[in-house]
Formats: sequence, C-alpha cells, structure tokens
Amino acid sequence: MITVDLGSRSYPIQIRAGALDDYDFYRQHIPGKQILVITNETVAPLYLERVLAAAGDDRKVSSVVLPDGEQFKTLADLEAIFETALREGHNRTTTFLALGGGVVGDMAGFAAASYQRGVSFLQIPTTLLAQVDSSVGGKTGVNHPLGKNMIGAFHQPRAVLIDTDVLQTLPAREYAAGLAEVIKYGLICDRDFYHWLQHNREALIDKEPNALKLAIERSCEAKARVVAADEREAGVRAILNLGHTFAHAIESAKGYGRWLHGEAVAAGMVLAVRLSIRRGMLADDCLPVLLSWLEGVGLPTEPPKDIPTNLWLELMGRDKKVLDGRLRLVLLREIGEAFVTSDVESSDLAEFLGEFAA
Amino acid sequence: MITVDLGSRSYPIQIRAGALDDYDFYRQHIPGKQILVITNETVAPLYLERVLAAAGDDRKVSSVVLPDGEQFKTLADLEAIFETALREGHNRTTTFLALGGGVVGDMAGFAAASYQRGVSFLQIPTTLLAQVDSSVGGKTGVNHPLGKNMIGAFHQPRAVLIDTDVLQTLPAREYAAGLAEVIKYGLICDRDFYHWLQHNREALIDKEPNALKLAIERSCEAKARVVAADEREAGVRAILNLGHTFAHAIESAKGYGRWLHGEAVAAGMVLAVRLSIRRGMLADDCLPVLLSWLEGVGLPTEPPKDIPTNLWLELMGRDKKVLDGRLRLVLLREIGEAFVTSDVESSDLAEFLGEFAA
Repeated sequence: MITVDLGSRSYPIQIRAGALDDYDFYRQHIPGKQILVITNETVAPLYLERVLAAAGDDRKVSSVVLPDGEQFKTLADLEAIFETALREGHNRTTTFLALGGGVVGDMAGFAAASYQRGVSFLQIPTTLLAQVDSSVGGKTGVNHPLGKNMIGAFHQPRAVLIDTDVLQTLPAREYAAGLAEVIKYGLICDRDFYHWLQHNREALIDKEPNALKLAIERSCEAKARVVAADEREAGVRAILNLGHTFAHAIESAKGYGRWLHGEAVAAGMVLAVRLSIRRGMLADDCLPVLLSWLEGVGLPTEPPKDIPTNLWLELMGRDKKVLDGRLRLVLLREIGEAFVTSDVESSDLAEFLGEFAA
Repeated sequence: MITVDLGSRSYPIQIRAGALDDYDFYRQHIPGKQILVITNETVAPLYLERVLAAAGDDRKVSSVVLPDGEQFKTLADLEAIFETALREGHNRTTTFLALGGGVVGDMAGFAAASYQRGVSFLQIPTTLLAQVDSSVGGKTGVNHPLGKNMIGAFHQPRAVLIDTDVLQTLPAREYAAGLAEVIKYGLICDRDFYHWLQHNREALIDKEPNALKLAIERSCEAKARVVAADEREAGVRAILNLGHTFAHAIESAKGYGRWLHGEAVAAGMVLAVRLSIRRGMLADDCLPVLLSWLEGVGLPTEPPKDIPTNLWLELMGRDKKVLDGRLRLVLLREIGEAFVTSDVESSDLAEFLGEFAA
C-alpha cells in the first residue's frame, strides 16, 4: 500500500490484481450511506456491475454513464453528474466513485469538489494512464475550447484503487499511451526505474503481471512523492509536466481526442529531451535510447508537421505554467533529474519548433 | 478593520464611506499584475470605471459584465467569465474582483475557485445583503434547476472592501432585503444588537451614515466570528441559515428572482420564530416585536400561500443541511441564541406549514 502523504488529507493507493471486488476496501474508505458511481459507456458494460456489487453493500447506489472521449470533458457535460446526484437525493455525505480513465476521473473529481461545495470521492482508474498519473494527486477539472484543464479544482480523493487486471481489456493504443507517463517518471526523477524500463520493455508490452504491478507501483510512488512535496504546484510538482506544454499544444491544435494525451506526451517528451540536448544540458546519446523505447511500445516520437510555429507559441503561451508572460518549460539536466526553467527565449523556441514543420 | 480569522487564509474586511476609490487597499491586497473585474449590467455604469481607475494602477485590466439577476446564476453563465479570462490571457497570478451583489460575488468567487484550479479574488459588495452576508465567509457557487447553490466551492477572498456610500443608490426593495440578514445576526447571536436595531429602525430606513456603518460592522463581526469557528459548516456555522431552509423552498417554488433572497429569508425567519414558539422554546411576545420591525422596513412576514405542503417538504428536503434523510432546522432558544435541530418530525412540519396555505 502506497500513501500520498498530505497530512489530514493523506490517502492510500491500493494496487493489486482483482482489487475491483475488494469489499473491505470500499467499506473502509466510503464514509456515508450514499454512493454515485461515475463511469463511461465503454467501461460501464465491463465493470460497473462488479463495482456496484462490491461497493454498494447497504448503501443507496446511483450511477452516471458519460459519453466516452476527451471532447466530452466540458463544463456542460458535468451537468449529467449534478442532475443525477440531485434527482436521486445525494447529500453532503455522499461519495462519488470515479470508474474509468483520466477523463472520467478528472470530471468526477471536479464534480465531487463542486457538488454541494465538496463531497468525498474515490478514484478507480481503469486505464494505465489514469492509474499511474491522473488518479493520484488531486488535480481535477474540465477543458475549455481555449485551453485544456483550464477549469477545475485541487480535490484529493479519499483513496485510489488500482486493479491491474483491468488493463488486460485495455485497447493497445491506450495502453501504449499510459506507458508514456510511466517512462516519464524514469526521465524526471528515477534513473534506476528508467533503466529497469529499458530492460523490461517486452514484459510490459506483453502485460506480464509482475512487471505491470512493479511499473505501476514505482510510478505511483514517484507521483506520491512529488505531490506530497508540493500539492498545489507552487514549485517542484511542475516537473510532472515534462513534455506536457508541448503535448497540450498538440492536443489543442489537432482537436482534443485525435491524439491521445499519452501520445502527445510522448512526442512532447522527445521535444523536451531534444531541447535539453540542444542547450548542452543532456548527453546526445540519451535521445536514441528514448526513441527506441517509445517506438518499441508503439508511441509517436515526432509532433504533427502541420502546426505553424506561431500557433505552437500561441498555444504554449496559454499553459497554466506561464507566469507574467514567461513560458516555463520542464527540461532534463540528466536522466532522472528534471527542472523547470523560464530561460528559453521565444525566438529560440520558435527556431527549434520550426525544424519540425513540414 | 475587521479580520476573518482563518489562519493562513485570514483576511480583512474594510468598511467605510468612499472605500471604492481606496488605491492603497487594492495595492495591498492584489498580489499580481492582472485583474479581472466581474460585475453586472446594473452596477457597471455606476462603479466599474471608478474601480478600474483605483485598482488598475499599472496592471493589465479586464472586465466582464454579466446580466443582472438570480436566474443567471448558473453553471452555463460562468462561461462568460472563463471565456474573457482565457481570451485576455489571464494566468494563475491573476486576481478576480467581484463588484456587485450576492449573485456577482457567488459567481465570481466560484469562477476564481475554478479558474486554472484557483486564483485570488476580492469581494467588493455593492448591495447591503452582500455586504453583511454573502461577501464574507468564502461560500461561492451557482444554482441548479433542482436546487439553490448546489454547485460551488469554499474559496475565501483575500479581502473584502465595503463602501457604505454605494447603498445610497441601492433600490429600496433590495435595501430592505439586506436588512433581513442584518436582523438575522441579532436573532441568532447578538441580543444587544437586536435591541439596538429595534431602537434605530428609522435611522436605518433613512440610511443615516453612522447607523449604517455600525449595522454593517456588527453584522460582519458576527459573521466573521461564526465563520472563524467553523469555516466549512461542520457545526455552528449552520446557525447563519436561520430561516434559510424555508427561504430556499420559497425561492425554488416561486422561481429564482421573483422573491428576493432577503425577502424569502424574512418570511423564513418568521416561520422559524413561530416554530420555536410553538415548540415551547421561545416566549410568545418575541413574534410581534419581530413582525413589527420587518413590516416597518418593508419586508414580507408570511410565505406565499400557494405552496402545497408536499412541495414545501420536497423542496426543504433538498437542503444541503439534510443528513441521512433528516431535515435539520435552525431554531431559537431565545433572542440571540440559535441552535440546529433534527428533532422536528416531518408530520409536525407538514401540519405547521399547512396553516399558511390559502
């Protein structure tokens, strides 16, 4: 059991095969007599009944099935959650359960933060990306046509329940997208893990249970450490966004949902590594090692060629890390050591990005 | 200067004539280089330019003018705020200024809580009701068709600036609605203030500056005390809702905006006092004193006659204070001493409310 150490808001992350049916876990972490399971139309047929059976117990149970996709992660789409919660009489003691990927977790978490000014929630992530990243750390929210995750709240779950078995049904493309966030932890803060990942690529591609569990644990430990040090991203937490400023621009330029988030992050991390090398901070030979791993698991290693440089800069300029007009980027000093910098001039960035245009 | 004592989130309430132009106040309490003033179409022509001039200084300044009215306090109507903030490049260091009544304050506060997962905000309330109640304490949010203030956040302002002069332009009906919340403080926790209000009714009706300032100060002190003791309404803060469970049902049954909130609270407080007397807790002669004061300032003392008893119960059952199916009501033990109870049976409540139907 991993703990995210946040004082009175600390919470456990339980990771194991078959955890979805863990009656005791639900009994321990659901405080009241009402639950609202929030899921989507892809996950509901696979797992909703099992969760309702295990978590429902003697509680009043409701569920909301959202449409599946990043394009439905909007303020307007939250309405379905509030509507069900109110119509079915959920009060301040209710607990929302997020059963799904990152979109479901972000929406359910923000709904929990806002419903009657805040109710409890549990994360039950069903994609690799959500398991190793978005379900841990309390960032919740929805997208705006003018920027990703621009409306939201910091609202920590009471617990995170990760069933490694559910990854067996995850489509290959989504699984690969999750691996992008896994290797990110190696790059930013865990050099040994990065090497382990190099040696265990095939085991991960084959979803070998022990390798999977270790990769998820190590990722969650890294995330828990960084979040505990800086819950609201006043400083070090920003390193979790390696590649993300580029990724958000890619997602925004191509339309949410066309590139999976993890795919955009993979391409974004390559850009961050290239830029780190170009600025003389990182050894040249880091690049082929990373490229080979990403290609091996089926992830893109280049951004789309049709984003004009001025659009890149405009979209990156909307990033939440921008402070007083200065873009802040996460770069690498070496493998396992990321840092945040405002030292990259727009003109340099424009020249760098221009090299990737068709 | 009154302080709302909430540890690291403590903040001052400044109350004085002409405070709107207080350049130093803005300089002291706005941390960054960007401000977004959120106001409405009624207040903007009166005060927006003055606030922009005093608060703008060397900052980047934007403003959003919302339509005026409780019916526009919805999730969808928040969009105008997010749209402007994003389009004009506001980042995490921006400060939102709420310039208006309770609706503007609640919406701007929730927008500040949610924009990029939380930015600073200042309250500059321009109605009596907002000055003595909604601008202090950090409750923010919007209505849902199924219930008032059901979507929101606790998000404390960095400061509250109250200019008593602005009340001179406040329409009589809205001014009276604010006086309902003023006398509420006397009823729930300040018996001396209640008596002072009895003796100074005419001075308040005439908006005599010294009487006004004292009434607002005393109200804000009471609210600050209660909020400091129980920020998130786990207990004693609920007494601030004297009359409000009835009031929310009235507003919901009649359609938001038909009854002003303060008017519904006035009628709701009379119901709470009647119920307290009926249950043998409060002396009979408290009622005529309260009725006479409320009638004197032009407030309703009876609920609408066309709410059927079952609708009363259904609407009151949606109150955020309902816990595990038990309605919790605020009643009075004596003048100046309110308490929360779950002891009122639905059948008793139905019989009591039935007496007010036509």
